[in-house]
Amino acid sequence: MNNFLLSTPTRIRFGEGQVINLPKEIPSTANILLTIGGGSVKKNGILNAVMSSLQDYKITVFEGIEANPEFETLLQAIELGKRESVDYILAVGGGSVLDGSKLIAAGIANPAVEPWEIVTSGGKAAKTALPIGTVLTLPATGSESNGNAVISRRSTGDKLGIASPLFYPRFAVLDPTYTYTLDERQVANGVVDAFVHTIEQYLTYPVNAKVQDRFAEGILCTLIEEGPKALQEPQNYDVRANIMWSATMALNGLIGAGVPQDWATHMIGHEITAVHGLDHAQTLAIVLPNLMANQKETKREKLLQYAERVWSLDPCDEESIDRAILLTRDFFETMGTSTRFSGYGIDEPKIERIIEKLNEHGMTALGEHGKIDLTSCREILEAAR
Amino acid sequence: MNNFLLSTPTRIRFGEGQVINLPKEIPSTANILLTIGGGSVKKNGILNAVMSSLQDYKITVFEGIEANPEFETLLQAIELGKRESVDYILAVGGGSVLDGSKLIAAGIANPAVEPWEIVTSGGKAAKTALPIGTVLTLPATGSESNGNAVISRRSTGDKLGIASPLFYPRFAVLDPTYTYTLDERQVANGVVDAFVHTIEQYLTYPVNAKVQDRFAEGILCTLIEEGPKALQEPQNYDVRANIMWSATMALNGLIGAGVPQDWATHMIGHEITAVHGLDHAQTLAIVLPNLMANQKETKREKLLQYAERVWSLDPCDEESIDRAILLTRDFFETMGTSTRFSGYGIDEPKIERIIEKLNEHGMTALGEHGKIDLTSCREILEAAR
Repeated sequence: MNNFLLSTPTRIRFGEGQVINLPKEIPSTANILLTIGGGSVKKNGILNAVMSSLQDYKITVFEGIEANPEFETLLQAIELGKRESVDYILAVGGGSVLDGSKLIAAGIANPAVEPWEIVTSGGKAAKTALPIGTVLTLPATGSESNGNAVISRRSTGDKLGIASPLFYPRFAVLDPTYTYTLDERQVANGVVDAFVHTIEQYLTYPVNAKVQDRFAEGILCTLIEEGPKALQEPQNYDVRANIMWSATMALNGLIGAGVPQDWATHMIGHEITAVHGLDHAQTLAIVLPNLMANQKETKREKLLQYAERVWSLDPCDEESIDRAILLTRDFFETMGTSTRFSGYGIDEPKIERIIEKLNEHGMTALGEHGKIDLTSCREILEAAR
Repeated sequence: MNNFLLSTPTRIRFGEGQVINLPKEIPSTANILLTIGGGSVKKNGILNAVMSSLQDYKITVFEGIEANPEFETLLQAIELGKRESVDYILAVGGGSVLDGSKLIAAGIANPAVEPWEIVTSGGKAAKTALPIGTVLTLPATGSESNGNAVISRRSTGDKLGIASPLFYPRFAVLDPTYTYTLDERQVANGVVDAFVHTIEQYLTYPVNAKVQDRFAEGILCTLIEEGPKALQEPQNYDVRANIMWSATMALNGLIGAGVPQDWATHMIGHEITAVHGLDHAQTLAIVLPNLMANQKETKREKLLQYAERVWSLDPCDEESIDRAILLTRDFFETMGTSTRFSGYGIDEPKIERIIEKLNEHGMTALGEHGKIDLTSCREILEAAR
């Protein structure tokens, strides 16, 4: 097991009706900037529930944080927050609203720093940040209890990650019933995203970290069992609860503590989104099975362990690796998430453009060994046509 | 899944040599009361390593916190801390030192409250507490990252639990090499204690909490695999690391969030310690297999799940339950921890005295359903002769 520092300070309020506990989490004197996305939380009643729980608070609402949160939009929120002298950010939505709110919290608290500098510095330019609370509506990114965010700037074609202990939400309200109104694609995307987050921290090489491995396998098994059910029975509370908790656990630092991590699938996927505009999770589904096949030798031991513990295959049979990869592919397809470009109507993927982008962003030595180079990336993408 | 509030604020510094990071965790202006047990940390060099890492700090050492930390001893530490105006507690030791230090932190910070009142109120009388840091030397109790402690007062025969969010350590240094010098009995006790902590939060009735179940099963499997190895290869780093991390994860709130909990084994075990003076873990090993057998009907579904996932038995065969119970018993015995009174030379256990004590302490409706009454307790104890 590798050495690690693990910090999981976000308080979790999990279950139906937890929104009534918001006043226990937010100081009564707070002047809140409440951030939301495109307005679905207005239609489904979640915003009303939040406002009603916080009826004694001073609240300014900022609406319009889009998927892949746009820097220019977040700038407007920062300006609004400054004008209203807010001192607390409450993000109500999915990963994009939460991610965007982290930059908003930093931008308002650091008036002397250019917000774009906070982004380009990876978050380091932020010396402080307003406290952030979260009410999650789409389990996927884990943003509700980690210090990470991804910010996009369409005018420059940038999609950049920021991270800081300052960005950890103080609390996360996780109410599985808030996910009942998600459409199938959103549910599928969330399940695939959480699955691949787990794989990125698990499917590398063994370091004898038994608890971390077992936890990761537990999350994978749960997503495999519950994902298809979430599509079939959209209002099955326990199914939604298990998926929501899996997604949070997949990226709060716990399963990645003390183990090597890969993240090549994410890096390649980001460029596919930039070039082809596919959903984040769709790009992960395109890349992962082909990356697993491409890296079969490097990941052999963990692939056999994955085959055995997640798919109940014989770990002494080398063919179990190919079967496990096929079952992974089938799982994504069962979720309605195609694992090939062609599944999204892209008959001629712009592979060279994606490779150029990877090169441009310095993504030339990916994976847990830093050995997935542009040649391997090209092979992976070619196999994904 | 049940609703829950989960808070895991303790920062974990895990791995060999992490003691050098103490200055990153403790404010440089801190006036530290460093608490230790019987002095083993002096002999094995851990105290030296801590002092050397903190050479620029003002430190007062309090030595002598015993196993099952004694209230009168802790009173002395509180007086010393007040005299020296300390404002930070650094506990270096096992669960008893850490538990005792939580009362010390509360006692010093609440001079207007009688320390005994803090104990009898279950911790509620403490309105504040000094910050606590921990350096763990014996993985077992989980005290390094939870808000709980058990305090004993021999003059009155009391052994009482206290709990408060104020008692969460700010950080925990977990260095597996610090456990190399433990004797076999300490190692075995730690493994059994962590195993039973996990079982208390797992082996109840199903609430479809898949992640929590998988995590609990992962900890159990790890302890079963690594426990015997820890006895055979005392300086196997990964084995020690896996046990240490298992013990922390077993009782930091994570696996118990959103699921029913039992704790009858602990309640009965506490009285056995009071009456017969056995080690805490020894009492758990005596009670658990017999409690499992006694509660076979009530716990049937989870026992079958346990049999399947932890012991690879057929969940469709009812006999798997008895086999799983037998394998649990064998595991404890393999660790050198007897599962019968007779194994500790107690040919005539004072069962009626233990029952009286349980009655006296109101422990008449134990277990996840509150249905383990004194009659059941007597049956369990009789079966454990």
